[in-house]
Amino acid sequence: MKILEDKILKEGKVFPGNVLKVDSFLNHQIDVELIDRLGEVFYEKYKNKNITKVLTLEASGIAIACATARLLEVPVVFAKKTQSLNIGNDVYVTRVSSFTHGRDYDVTVSRNYLTKEDIVLLVDDFLAIGNAMKGLIEICDQAGAGIAGIGICIEKGFQKGGADLRQMGYDVTSLAIVDGMEDDGTINFREQED
Amino acid sequence: MKILEDKILKEGKVFPGNVLKVDSFLNHQIDVELIDRLGEVFYEKYKNKNITKVLTLEASGIAIACATARLLEVPVVFAKKTQSLNIGNDVYVTRVSSFTHGRDYDVTVSRNYLTKEDIVLLVDDFLAIGNAMKGLIEICDQAGAGIAGIGICIEKGFQKGGADLRQMGYDVTSLAIVDGMEDDGTINFREQED
Repeated sequence: MKILEDKILKEGKVFPGNVLKVDSFLNHQIDVELIDRLGEVFYEKYKNKNITKVLTLEASGIAIACATARLLEVPVVFAKKTQSLNIGNDVYVTRVSSFTHGRDYDVTVSRNYLTKEDIVLLVDDFLAIGNAMKGLIEICDQAGAGIAGIGICIEKGFQKGGADLRQMGYDVTSLAIVDGMEDDGTINFREQED
Repeated sequence: MKILEDKILKEGKVFPGNVLKVDSFLNHQIDVELIDRLGEVFYEKYKNKNITKVLTLEASGIAIACATARLLEVPVVFAKKTQSLNIGNDVYVTRVSSFTHGRDYDVTVSRNYLTKEDIVLLVDDFLAIGNAMKGLIEICDQAGAGIAGIGICIEKGFQKGGADLRQMGYDVTSLAIVDGMEDDGTINFREQED
């Protein structure tokens, strides 16, 4: 998606260790107008899939989930990363190893908000090795919910998450796929139909 | 705001210890259409205040922040609750004690996204004893940013946060103020002009 690639080229910052920072518009400061346009793409792609919920993971996925769910006219559910005293025990739970943060955490979703009647669109801001997204899939499996597709804003195509998920048979839509980054700040995108 | 009070009466659950769970529409599952209507109220109230940023705290504040910022046509910045390896060290930071979670955490905002040029609308889903909101105010003070107002979805009026903030001179808009809850599930709202 050209407007997203242009934004990444303009504002993204490359750091050693294949770190791409896009916190000026995606996951710290949020460019709401841009995120809404990304949500429109997911909506157009999945609008005929009878989706009942958009599921994401706190915190960075919430904005893009809301932008998509607004158009689909369904609720968002955001999975929580730690057990809150307020959430109760009646939850689906799975363990996720975070590449970014270098630690493990529990992901929980209340049994009240995801059931076998649901058809889910999974969305997130980033896809790298894919552990967070596989955690959300595990949660859907526990609930017996169907998965209509996976919408990702930025996929790191040189890491294995996207390939894994496609091999597992999921319909993954990544709006920008970064196939390589260089220390001088060069960012190479995979060519996709827009 | 009547539609919010009605939703709280219909779906909110009261638990011992003055816990009000509204995770069916506000802070786990998100009713995007409702949240958009709440955002419209903050927009109408603050649209002439020259606001440049909507500042909130991850994760539950992000949806209402986006709903408000979309109409104000400004970015959202969401403060982070833990130091991420990706965020860099050039941040404003303050310590917050969480009543809900029974522990302390650091709140950080990158210096890149909040400056003395900014006029900020602070928003959050809940206001109880007010520690999180006071943390956001401290962050704005560190940045030298102006604060145009504070928008809260649900204020627990029987806790001191709202009174503290109003006494400090802030223009606090709470869309529903719960003045008391009883163990049988009764919820009493403060009368406000709608």
